[in-house]
Amino acid sequence: MTVEARQERAAAWFRTLRDRFCAAFEALEDAHEGGFGAPGRFERTIWKRPTEDGGDGGGGEMSIMKGRVFEKVGVNFSAVHGAFSPEFRDRIPGAADDPRFWASGISVVAHLCSPLVPAMHMNTRFIVTTKAWFGGGGDLTPIYPDADAAARLHGALEAACDAYDPACYARFREACDRYFFLPHRDEPRGAGGIFYDNLGSGDWEADFAFTQGVGRAVLEAYPEIVRERMAAPWTEEQRAHQLVRRGRYVEFNLLYDRGTEFGLRTGGNVEAILMSLPPMVAWP
Amino acid sequence: MTVEARQERAAAWFRTLRDRFCAAFEALEDAHEGGFGAPGRFERTIWKRPTEDGGDGGGGEMSIMKGRVFEKVGVNFSAVHGAFSPEFRDRIPGAADDPRFWASGISVVAHLCSPLVPAMHMNTRFIVTTKAWFGGGGDLTPIYPDADAAARLHGALEAACDAYDPACYARFREACDRYFFLPHRDEPRGAGGIFYDNLGSGDWEADFAFTQGVGRAVLEAYPEIVRERMAAPWTEEQRAHQLVRRGRYVEFNLLYDRGTEFGLRTGGNVEAILMSLPPMVAWP
Repeated sequence: MTVEARQERAAAWFRTLRDRFCAAFEALEDAHEGGFGAPGRFERTIWKRPTEDGGDGGGGEMSIMKGRVFEKVGVNFSAVHGAFSPEFRDRIPGAADDPRFWASGISVVAHLCSPLVPAMHMNTRFIVTTKAWFGGGGDLTPIYPDADAAARLHGALEAACDAYDPACYARFREACDRYFFLPHRDEPRGAGGIFYDNLGSGDWEADFAFTQGVGRAVLEAYPEIVRERMAAPWTEEQRAHQLVRRGRYVEFNLLYDRGTEFGLRTGGNVEAILMSLPPMVAWP
Repeated sequence: MTVEARQERAAAWFRTLRDRFCAAFEALEDAHEGGFGAPGRFERTIWKRPTEDGGDGGGGEMSIMKGRVFEKVGVNFSAVHGAFSPEFRDRIPGAADDPRFWASGISVVAHLCSPLVPAMHMNTRFIVTTKAWFGGGGDLTPIYPDADAAARLHGALEAACDAYDPACYARFREACDRYFFLPHRDEPRGAGGIFYDNLGSGDWEADFAFTQGVGRAVLEAYPEIVRERMAAPWTEEQRAHQLVRRGRYVEFNLLYDRGTEFGLRTGGNVEAILMSLPPMVAWP
């Protein structure tokens, strides 16, 4: 199979997964009958990426919903191509000699109205330079410790890992714990999940199936976590705590997240990159 | 005069200036008779900085007020000493051969209840390695463009500069515009002010007098700016806009501010460093 065919299949999957996440989240908005206001619906914004010389560099589709379950949830799909600027060529596998790249991915970030429902982040991507690899992961950020939710997301991700390589879950889980960590506060961002990058085993079909499996695992586990918790009443005090915890989320994303830094420094779409930031945050 | 005597005089001035800022801001709380709730008062927290080997590394005094004029205002004084870790020695003037340092400073960050009153930041410091220099500046961040407020702060800072070196205002003003800029949004953080660093002209008395002048200029100009605007009524829409603009402030401080990065990476006091972040912020 040509690399172009692989790109087409990967991008088509990310779009399909995007549609499924949006449908699952809108269904939760409908199901939350005690909710305040009408059920939320995604609004989609298309953006184009001009290449460095003003040509067609692809673009993306940003889907954002502000609802009665999801205070703000974004589901971004993108498929872009171009050439890395000199400062990035040495940092990207396979880009030192030929700076051209192609990249497609999906990114999901959910911030909930209820402080009793964990926030969630999932991102998977396929990147092609003179090399080609998958990367991504999924992780949970409960406002209050939630062992049940963490165990269920971890269980789903572990199953997806085991179907690919029984040794990889422990490694990807540890990579997630290491990555989503705030050194200045000596605390993790959340309850972990998995994180992987530069995945190019030589068996593209297996790597692609794994990446699909990660998306499916989060899609199966997370909406159920939300559904079971979204109707529970919460207090003003819990809401205030949620806004403070969200501050940690912002600190991580702006101080440490490599994807955010990379996106902002390579002229990515600012609104799509910063879609991850919570709708309301406090540093009291 | 010995360097110890200079350190003592600089630190004593930063403390004095801290007291004057706190008094001026509390006076505004008292003067805001139409205000909601009791006038705010500063609360002070003392923190100690252990050195790298667990010894006495000095510390600081963090004064924070949450009032009816100032939604959150912090006035930090610190005087610390120790030794730079190897990764920082090459980045700090005079630290390559001898990593020991002494540093004292004052930092003021004001976020107002009213979206019609500009936020303000001022910081001055004296740093000693094998070299010794002053740094700092002051700048204004209006939520809505406010030419009068900007002109008044700039005028006061220009007068302080002119008393030191008539050529320096233009240079320090431009440095401020360059520094407080968000490249990813292609927009300035605010209305500017002045910014200077590595100021060691050889005439310590003159450099010190200038740094005192910068503090006095902000202390004279800013409370008047607040006083004239604090009673004006504002709308919910203006408040919502304020929370969005504060997001830009957070983006700058966490993505680009060198002082924040430096403080967090050198084990500074996290609460004191992140005191600059606004009390309530939105990324809607």
